[in-house]
Amino acid sequence: MRCEVLAVGTELLLGQIVDTNSTWIGEQLAASGIDSYEHRAIGDNQARIVAALRDLLSEADAVIVCGGLGPTPDDLTRDAIAQLLGVPLVRDLALAEQIATMFRSRLRDMPENNLRQADIPEGGDAIPNPIGTAPGLRCVLDGNVVYAVPGVPYEMQKMVTEHVIPDLLRRSGEAAAIVSRNLKTWGTSESALAELIADRVDAQSNPTIAFLARGIEGLVVRITAKAATPLEARALVEREERELREILGDLVFGVDDETIEYAVLAQLRKRGWSLGVAESVTGGLIGARIVNVPGASDVFRGTIASYATEVKRSVLGVTAEVVVSEEAAREMAEGARRVLGADVGVAATGVAGPTEQDGIAVGTVCFGLAFPDGTTEAVTARLPGDRERIRQFSAISLLNLLRLRLDARP
Amino acid sequence: MRCEVLAVGTELLLGQIVDTNSTWIGEQLAASGIDSYEHRAIGDNQARIVAALRDLLSEADAVIVCGGLGPTPDDLTRDAIAQLLGVPLVRDLALAEQIATMFRSRLRDMPENNLRQADIPEGGDAIPNPIGTAPGLRCVLDGNVVYAVPGVPYEMQKMVTEHVIPDLLRRSGEAAAIVSRNLKTWGTSESALAELIADRVDAQSNPTIAFLARGIEGLVVRITAKAATPLEARALVEREERELREILGDLVFGVDDETIEYAVLAQLRKRGWSLGVAESVTGGLIGARIVNVPGASDVFRGTIASYATEVKRSVLGVTAEVVVSEEAAREMAEGARRVLGADVGVAATGVAGPTEQDGIAVGTVCFGLAFPDGTTEAVTARLPGDRERIRQFSAISLLNLLRLRLDARP
Repeated sequence: MRCEVLAVGTELLLGQIVDTNSTWIGEQLAASGIDSYEHRAIGDNQARIVAALRDLLSEADAVIVCGGLGPTPDDLTRDAIAQLLGVPLVRDLALAEQIATMFRSRLRDMPENNLRQADIPEGGDAIPNPIGTAPGLRCVLDGNVVYAVPGVPYEMQKMVTEHVIPDLLRRSGEAAAIVSRNLKTWGTSESALAELIADRVDAQSNPTIAFLARGIEGLVVRITAKAATPLEARALVEREERELREILGDLVFGVDDETIEYAVLAQLRKRGWSLGVAESVTGGLIGARIVNVPGASDVFRGTIASYATEVKRSVLGVTAEVVVSEEAAREMAEGARRVLGADVGVAATGVAGPTEQDGIAVGTVCFGLAFPDGTTEAVTARLPGDRERIRQFSAISLLNLLRLRLDARP
Repeated sequence: MRCEVLAVGTELLLGQIVDTNSTWIGEQLAASGIDSYEHRAIGDNQARIVAALRDLLSEADAVIVCGGLGPTPDDLTRDAIAQLLGVPLVRDLALAEQIATMFRSRLRDMPENNLRQADIPEGGDAIPNPIGTAPGLRCVLDGNVVYAVPGVPYEMQKMVTEHVIPDLLRRSGEAAAIVSRNLKTWGTSESALAELIADRVDAQSNPTIAFLARGIEGLVVRITAKAATPLEARALVEREERELREILGDLVFGVDDETIEYAVLAQLRKRGWSLGVAESVTGGLIGARIVNVPGASDVFRGTIASYATEVKRSVLGVTAEVVVSEEAAREMAEGARRVLGADVGVAATGVAGPTEQDGIAVGTVCFGLAFPDGTTEAVTARLPGDRERIRQFSAISLLNLLRLRLDARP
């Protein structure tokens, strides 16, 4: 089964928006074992949409067209598909009523144009859109299939997950259920990770194992299983996950949408400990990451970003002469515990550049940790990259260090 | 002149990375008045690269191929272009020596493979790459031209800006110089902005005026002028900029790469005032944005993210009973001034959700400002969106409020 992606929208060609939809669809197709050889983006031009569809379908079994389903005159995907099929557009009256109802329930007048979204190429099916006005389309041509989905990411994702991928799998006669899980890791390089699990990768067939590099968010090991039912597929994934976790140990910090800060907060919550942060080089970034976890307020007391040296001294009580040092990091962590009234204090102080500071090289970052029993720890890291990257690296490295230390504590 | 973009890399199709290169190239082509009707992404497969190039060149005058110039066996762009032209690859000895020198200067052994990067399709030209090992390529076929550039964004951007766009403009016989400037605005909707400058947009010819929506970073008005020389083009841009600024007034916070925090720091620096922040709902995000401006340490003292209510009281001295209130925001701003030893204090306290807090609706955010003369101000906003978006909106709204107040002060 081979399925290409066609993104429609002049704004994509003009570089006004980044085409993350094609990326997302490509990821879903790959995870479902469906080949994709080409992604194409073209403008809002009916003749060109028709030509591109014809061209792509001459080699592939299916095309997902993304965008151009809106109500305005430059939304031409519907008309292009009808032209390709050589059929008229037929208004689906039930759909039209549904769209009118949605407008009424939002107390808005419906522009007449919006009813165009109820037009379906004769012989095609509408794909329901429970969260927007534009339904998707599924049309078959000479045994191949064209799916049209809206360009609004959330609506598109729901339709692709719930309708398009299952339909493609049915058509391909492949296993009905695909289950994936992402094991998220931090702390090693892609090649070292690959070496660690080389035996599992060599032995893979079902589930399959893939690597995804997520930049500053670490490396992901994706396990994907196919089976007759979701239950069986999930069991296959879980068996492989146990094998991989056995090998990877504490490199794995979470699964799927879990972040390092999520893992840290969960560990602290389990122990009933609160967290305070003192940061310098990161300017507040560590706190900003932590509060992105819903429910962070159970655990997180706050962060003091002491950018100026005097603030480190007056607010956090740092006495170390050199403020980028392990001694200073330790004092900052203790200061965070004390000033913020937290059980655990962590700190980061360093040099993000562009130039060295007091003879300390760009990329030098000291981390401090202070625990409820009064013990403290400090480590120094040399982080690569520019200003922004050093900051991001500092935040995630400190959070990971805390995760490992909490893991190791009785 | 019509130029298409062909991105090469299986990882693009698998959704492992987002193709921001094509977006960026599309933006540059549009800014240069060069049409682009199609962006295509394909995998690391020589036959498919050749087929795609042939197909694209059957309609367009030029294609920019991005990616596949690395040293590994799956980097096939070079070979594909040679096959398309029906010529052999010829090793450029000067280039080979340059690549070897680069490795030596980094004290690294050069894998033999890297010399493949010195291979040029016969009759083609290398495009110099001063910051990486892979040179670009320029090859002419039947009057059309294929440019190949590396997939590394920074290297690609340098080559496209310095070589590809100027060469395309020369070939098109168009004006030799194109100058663009982005006026960055915050505080109004796209339709209101469009209405404000409708007369200028209707009257446009050279310079042209375009809108770019940058999401949370506001709306951009791009002015682009063509002329025989950069100096003349710049003069045209500047004249239009003056006209637009006259109309837009303080909606404009900066040009090109300038952010709101950059504008705020520049205003404070001019007055010799330092800045302290107290934040709650944003958890450190405001500080993190500010320190992204190089040289922030001149002005920025730090931020206290008092996430827990007790921290607002004990560290910042907040006495207001309700901690999401204008009174609390004012006290937090005064606390930031006092505790951080800053001339100006600003604060944000609010409810980011997912649920309301003490009867206060999600999206309610109070901002506080405290100035060196002892005056304070507080305002309340209702911000839309989810948790993350409310935070981002809070940060930029507070910074913009400070910018406007500083502008208005004598």
